[in-house]
Amino acid sequence: MKKNEMDALRQKAVGYFERAGIVLTPAEREAIEVTDYELGRFEDIGLFLLTYFNTGRSSARELVLLPNQACPEHFHPPFIDDAGENIGKEETFRCRMGKVYLYVDGEPTPNPQAKPPAFHGDFFKVRHEVALNPGDQYTLYPGTKHWFIAGPEGAIVSEFSTRIKDDADVFTDPSLSRFSRIEES
Amino acid sequence: MKKNEMDALRQKAVGYFERAGIVLTPAEREAIEVTDYELGRFEDIGLFLLTYFNTGRSSARELVLLPNQACPEHFHPPFIDDAGENIGKEETFRCRMGKVYLYVDGEPTPNPQAKPPAFHGDFFKVRHEVALNPGDQYTLYPGTKHWFIAGPEGAIVSEFSTRIKDDADVFTDPSLSRFSRIEES
Repeated sequence: MKKNEMDALRQKAVGYFERAGIVLTPAEREAIEVTDYELGRFEDIGLFLLTYFNTGRSSARELVLLPNQACPEHFHPPFIDDAGENIGKEETFRCRMGKVYLYVDGEPTPNPQAKPPAFHGDFFKVRHEVALNPGDQYTLYPGTKHWFIAGPEGAIVSEFSTRIKDDADVFTDPSLSRFSRIEES
Repeated sequence: MKKNEMDALRQKAVGYFERAGIVLTPAEREAIEVTDYELGRFEDIGLFLLTYFNTGRSSARELVLLPNQACPEHFHPPFIDDAGENIGKEETFRCRMGKVYLYVDGEPTPNPQAKPPAFHGDFFKVRHEVALNPGDQYTLYPGTKHWFIAGPEGAIVSEFSTRIKDDADVFTDPSLSRFSRIEES
């Protein structure tokens, strides 16, 4: 993504945080990550991430989704770090604002309330729906395939987890990249 | 503490969450824990805690402090659980609303901005000050002695951590209890 495009999008995320009353430091506002997973369709598949901290044992971040924007299907595998073998990232999502539909491994929900972006639908396979309104939360254990999509007003989701190791994420579409290259513009 | 006293205090905490825009479920509002550490001086030394979840690996909660209310000095020791040896709870405090002064092991701060409750001052020994305004955060590693006190407007602090094991907490005043007995009233 082009740098000036990312900078403009980042301001949208800042607006979400302000509306939710979530206070960020000036440095954090600048550090909000914008990713389109290198798909080039940010409004459909993309995410804002603000990582508060990431030690070897615990981490927390906020995720922001635009209206009907989806985070693509993936899971968190085991990895090895300085502390030895890690069974993989465990994360709990807690909806703070808006509405988010989370889909996980399990019995497909008969009449889901949202659907994945049509152009990329083959790579959204798990269909057990968990609808999260503000105050609702759900814990994902390592290895659980999942994807999620915001409702029509966008969403803010807190993610509480063990160590974040995003470069280990395994996407159902192997051509995706967790990180967007930043092109000078 | 008497049950009706706890119920009334809990409503104060609910008011703090509402002012901060932090949405809780009805069940969570009822589950806000009130503790005076069995000291009987809740306004001076006490805490509200709302634990969102506590798995074997990660946890998150919100803490609410009334104006100038202190959480007494303690640290989180190693313990043994089903998963084996745990080196102790690591926690990151992030101030959400108000102001909180955190005191940790280390060089005493010459002119601290707050002081512990006089009647219990002997049990507040560590004096290295970390002032947290909304958006500021600080990570405490296991074994670090710490206590904290809200500024004159009270505070909400998010706590992101590894497994919570409150019954293992070691207080500088060994007569304290982490949990208040609830007396029917």
